[in-house]
Amino acid sequence: MLTRIDHIGIACFDLDRTVEFYRNTYGFEVFHSEVNEEQGVREAMLKINDTGDGGASYLQLLEPTRDDSTVAKWLAKNGEGVHHIAFGTADVDGDAAAIRGKGVRVLYDEPRIGSMGSRITFLHPKDCGGVLTELVTSAAPSEHPEH
Amino acid sequence: MLTRIDHIGIACFDLDRTVEFYRNTYGFEVFHSEVNEEQGVREAMLKINDTGDGGASYLQLLEPTRDDSTVAKWLAKNGEGVHHIAFGTADVDGDAAAIRGKGVRVLYDEPRIGSMGSRITFLHPKDCGGVLTELVTSAAPSEHPEH
Repeated sequence: MLTRIDHIGIACFDLDRTVEFYRNTYGFEVFHSEVNEEQGVREAMLKINDTGDGGASYLQLLEPTRDDSTVAKWLAKNGEGVHHIAFGTADVDGDAAAIRGKGVRVLYDEPRIGSMGSRITFLHPKDCGGVLTELVTSAAPSEHPEH
Repeated sequence: MLTRIDHIGIACFDLDRTVEFYRNTYGFEVFHSEVNEEQGVREAMLKINDTGDGGASYLQLLEPTRDDSTVAKWLAKNGEGVHHIAFGTADVDGDAAAIRGKGVRVLYDEPRIGSMGSRITFLHPKDCGGVLTELVTSAAPSEHPEH
């Protein structure tokens, strides 16, 4: 069951500049940053608010680390902007299986590792009204990386 | 001060069909629906979670009601997908003025009426890394329209 907007993923060409825009314009601070080599992105998570399910909602700012990453290709086609949205769930495996059963294409056979040790998968945007949609199960608190 | 992700605005060609997709795929239900003649949209708000500031986060599904609305023009250019993101604040007037003072273009001279009697304004996407960004102050509970 999806219980929160976990994050909004925003693709940018220059992460440091974009982080500075969000800090200077709105006062949002970096909660966590990391490089995800598998996804080919350098990212910063800005925590915006706590959520009623015990989690939180973030902006995820994404800069590609290599030209063949999906985010690099997306930026080349679309320019900067909202790349995807993500819903939080306690059970990404179960929800992904249920959603696949409804005929929506799930992009990974098994969830992969996302921000802060979470487990994630994506749904095909053509099956979701043009919205690249991610499902996220946060890491247990003890599994959170240092940030 | 922006204290929550208030909503993600998603533009679609067929609101009823898109509402049904979100209900069938994820179990999200319509919390509120209305027509905003000024904005030229018919919309459905799906409440996803409560937020730590006493508000909530929604998906806002938007179908244009006329061909000259900004959402209709956007859809003609981009197809369906994420149209804008919105941050909630207790003081849209003050925050809009402060943000204008930082050199970001604010699209309205005065906030206009948004979903559920809220007061809203928009920031120019070219000044916000390609992200059309809305600021929202919710109506006081007694001012909420029936839904």
